[in-house]
Amino acid sequence: MEIVTERFTVSSRGNSEVVDITERVAAILTQRKLREGLATIFVSGSTASITTTEFEPGLRRDIPEALQRLAPQGARYHHDDMWHDGNGHSHVRASFMGPSLSVPFSQGELLLGTWQQIVLVDHDNRPRERTIIVQLIGQETT
Amino acid sequence: MEIVTERFTVSSRGNSEVVDITERVAAILTQRKLREGLATIFVSGSTASITTTEFEPGLRRDIPEALQRLAPQGARYHHDDMWHDGNGHSHVRASFMGPSLSVPFSQGELLLGTWQQIVLVDHDNRPRERTIIVQLIGQETT
Amino acid sequence: MEIVTERFTVSSRGNSEVVDITERVAAILTQRKLREGLATIFVSGSTASITTTEFEPGLRRDIPEALQRLAPQGARYHHDDMWHDGNGHSHVRASFMGPSLSVPFSQGELLLGTWQQIVLVDHDNRPRERTIIVQLIGQETT
Repeated sequence: MEIVTERFTVSSRGNSEVVDITERVAAILTQRKLREGLATIFVSGSTASITTTEFEPGLRRDIPEALQRLAPQGARYHHDDMWHDGNGHSHVRASFMGPSLSVPFSQGELLLGTWQQIVLVDHDNRPRERTIIVQLIGQETT
Repeated sequence: MEIVTERFTVSSRGNSEVVDITERVAAILTQRKLREGLATIFVSGSTASITTTEFEPGLRRDIPEALQRLAPQGARYHHDDMWHDGNGHSHVRASFMGPSLSVPFSQGELLLGTWQQIVLVDHDNRPRERTIIVQLIGQETT
Repeated sequence: MEIVTERFTVSSRGNSEVVDITERVAAILTQRKLREGLATIFVSGSTASITTTEFEPGLRRDIPEALQRLAPQGARYHHDDMWHDGNGHSHVRASFMGPSLSVPFSQGELLLGTWQQIVLVDHDNRPRERTIIVQLIGQETT
């Protein structure tokens, strides 16, 4: 059994932009030659989330729009009263969606559905460079 | 330390139906005789979620009703404009609730609360056969 | 590779109070001298959640207020019609936010952002004593 912890960075425009990171995660798995185990994908920071979606242009707009109904930018947040950085809604959205995702892999492949991609959703109110952590716990034989 | 990756299928009617899968997960743990470790429950596909709830008739209705307020069926989704499959709301709900759940086990038992069940919530707009992946990472001794 | 499963209890006032548990989780990691691996944080029970946030007074109010819009206390829930415990909204909120969080650690440190704390969000409608499970899967060398 082995543990591999890797990081990569992703640029986003914020405002709950949805960014496909599936290939980055899969590349780490391929390089490390692990066959069976668990991939944990985690974003450091309190204004971004990791989840899965079908990564296509329609949902890339639908997800931010639905988040705008859940925790509107422009509403009043106590966070903003205090810190004046205008991203209270970003924090609330991030806490709701969560920063971590667990994806099992087997025979060297992430066990995602055909139209299921791993995505960063960056809720901050400005462009950000994000650090994504991918940790694999697994073994070389199935 | 061992890794076990198993799959089973569950039928659902969709429309955010809540389906109790606790016994299916617990059965895999019992068969494999692991005593201490982590169970990851993951649903392949981008219109379903895994979470926990008290599985009782009231909440089986409350959860879909609350999801209907969060991401209403009948609202306009760019996904539907593009793909015409009418399940934009299903995708949004699935991305919000997430496809993975992590449950530690100890002394051969999942460490759930007494009234806490592991459930599939199937958001699609039609009946589906779902593949659930259960991965155990653990050992035979506590 | 080792597996460590520990429990601790936390008092909360309920009503989606946000409680910082980062130090409790970090202390377990320090005691066990694990350097590289995965921390799973799980709350037993169906009316509480684990997530991350910037733990500061503004967001401690914003998160309950946003949850009140998502699943209002005072709305009608079938759960309450049946069980008359008045916490239907607590269950719905808990299922949405989820009971589990996965945080990788490396070089003996949880890989959280600087302003990212691990929190319990207790949605019940009364004060509760909560059991939090922390499970570490890891090794002593990086």
